[in-house]
Amino acid sequence: MEERLFDKILTAVKKPDGSIKKRIQERLDNLTKPPGSLGRLEEAALKYAVIRGAVNPVLRRKTILTFVGDHGIAEEGVSAYPKEVTRQMVFNFLRGGAAVNVLARHIRAGVRIVDVGVDYDFGKTEGLISKKVRRGTGNFLKTPAMTKKEAVMAIEAGIETAIAETECGVDIVGVGDMGIGNSSSAAGITAVITEKPVEEITGRGTGIDDAGLRHKIAVIKSAIALHKPKQDDPIDIMRKVGGLEIGAIAGAIIGCASRKIPIVLDGFIATAGALIAFLLNKNTVKYLFASHLSKEKGHIAALRYLGLKPLLDLHLRLGEGTGACLAINLIEAGVRILNEMATFDGAGVSRNDL
Amino acid sequence: MEERLFDKILTAVKKPDGSIKKRIQERLDNLTKPPGSLGRLEEAALKYAVIRGAVNPVLRRKTILTFVGDHGIAEEGVSAYPKEVTRQMVFNFLRGGAAVNVLARHIRAGVRIVDVGVDYDFGKTEGLISKKVRRGTGNFLKTPAMTKKEAVMAIEAGIETAIAETECGVDIVGVGDMGIGNSSSAAGITAVITEKPVEEITGRGTGIDDAGLRHKIAVIKSAIALHKPKQDDPIDIMRKVGGLEIGAIAGAIIGCASRKIPIVLDGFIATAGALIAFLLNKNTVKYLFASHLSKEKGHIAALRYLGLKPLLDLHLRLGEGTGACLAINLIEAGVRILNEMATFDGAGVSRNDL
Repeated sequence: MEERLFDKILTAVKKPDGSIKKRIQERLDNLTKPPGSLGRLEEAALKYAVIRGAVNPVLRRKTILTFVGDHGIAEEGVSAYPKEVTRQMVFNFLRGGAAVNVLARHIRAGVRIVDVGVDYDFGKTEGLISKKVRRGTGNFLKTPAMTKKEAVMAIEAGIETAIAETECGVDIVGVGDMGIGNSSSAAGITAVITEKPVEEITGRGTGIDDAGLRHKIAVIKSAIALHKPKQDDPIDIMRKVGGLEIGAIAGAIIGCASRKIPIVLDGFIATAGALIAFLLNKNTVKYLFASHLSKEKGHIAALRYLGLKPLLDLHLRLGEGTGACLAINLIEAGVRILNEMATFDGAGVSRNDL
Repeated sequence: MEERLFDKILTAVKKPDGSIKKRIQERLDNLTKPPGSLGRLEEAALKYAVIRGAVNPVLRRKTILTFVGDHGIAEEGVSAYPKEVTRQMVFNFLRGGAAVNVLARHIRAGVRIVDVGVDYDFGKTEGLISKKVRRGTGNFLKTPAMTKKEAVMAIEAGIETAIAETECGVDIVGVGDMGIGNSSSAAGITAVITEKPVEEITGRGTGIDDAGLRHKIAVIKSAIALHKPKQDDPIDIMRKVGGLEIGAIAGAIIGCASRKIPIVLDGFIATAGALIAFLLNKNTVKYLFASHLSKEKGHIAALRYLGLKPLLDLHLRLGEGTGACLAINLIEAGVRILNEMATFDGAGVSRNDL
């Protein structure tokens, strides 16, 4: 039954219908500004409108999905913060005190906190969406991070969450992450898929020092040497060096794309999820916006692999969905340009002399 | 009397009091995120808070000042659009149909349209702030753009507009421009002040072709050779190759800075105004945010001269204040982070192990 959902939604992801593109571009060029003078704002509006299949698309309801999970690899001292911070941050999210809450309020978006694998029993905690697959991944320096079945369950957790959002009428979804240790998992995934050296992909995460970074690189290299994840097999990669929240992000992308809802990636961790989604179905990338270029070193390689160009470069390295919030706001600005600006004829403004 | 206002406000621009900086930085570092992990959002919040002199500064009221003027140099065919577009766009602004109106609504800012020198008699037009100095500048290929007295009047028009806004309790001001031909004036100002070759500074404005660009460069070079503006004399530069709305932008910067209100520059034209303001009083730059890196070629040189790093790079080249809107939204996001996020102690979140 679970595998059926996975397969059914996965095959439902088709490319957006590009036939409307010309009409949208014509409208953009008829607005009272030199053609193309709003640059990437116009590009974003065009992409959004093509995905939504409308010359004047609605962009009202915005949701940030923040997926949370723990990582066995945190035992190896790869993070600057203790593992308890994952669950502590869940409570901070639910109280509205974290960065993503503030930025989501700023852009008037909702935030959903989804527990896919925190190593803590939350019982019935109001406001928390429970999709727990297991209490944290295995320490992938020693064992696979999860079973194949758990990898699929994590992805399905994301699919289900996304489908539920689309059924509430969401117009755009941002995907973010929280999980101490997850930049090690994301680096492993990204190194395997992009085939770049681990040194080029591994960054300081929440802020480890030089010695910590050397150690982190050694740990990820050992894990890849031990498990030999198959470069073209996303479930194998997930099973061996993945993260539960990263799988859920991949699932959320697939779920939204199957319903033709645009997804805005946050930073390095979310983009690792996008790599998994891309290997599962290449059409998913057509629904993705890259919000920002993370300070985390491996992010650029992952974005290049996907052919995505970030909208922002603000040296962010927090995750949670914070960068996605800022980019959604820009996309919305572009869509409002498309929908609300006057046309040359309507406003009685002369066109250019060319 | 007019010269007295100019001198009085100009000498009133002092550096922000930096003594509060340490306390603001402490608060940023106590928020539930790795220190510095929100990158340039934190930098922007810090700068804003230092200018406002508060650890938890208010950022509620936002205004975009769009200064409009005509340019005699437009006679020389340096723009892709006919001169009438300047006045046509004024009516578009007043009806709310232009890009800056849409983006200002998006960020919940007000827009003030200020006529400093449109070559059209608007009579009493509702919503338009009239500070007309003269009906367009002289064609600076042949004559000085304006008299010395008019240059001071244009700057004062900006000072008065800004002071009026600060008296209504504005928290942040974006400055933008409209005026067919004004990228030629901005290129002249920028080339003279930065001492870069005209070829390196002159761009395509609203979208001229290669032949048009060569012609535009030749026109600006001739004008500079004819008038020889003094590199360190902002009034002389204004008089010879300036624009009325560019002078008003310089004045608005001075006016806001004198009241310790942060100013967000739009693109190339607004930054030319900032160069004039800087030469008049070097302290003004301490109050400036660069919103974005324009597609217009000379912008980067002007920003480097001022030591400002743009927040956005979206290939915008429209002006009006559009980029300023987007950047104000980011600055506001940073300020909300500073004001609204939970602290480690308050949220019971563990600090890093370092």
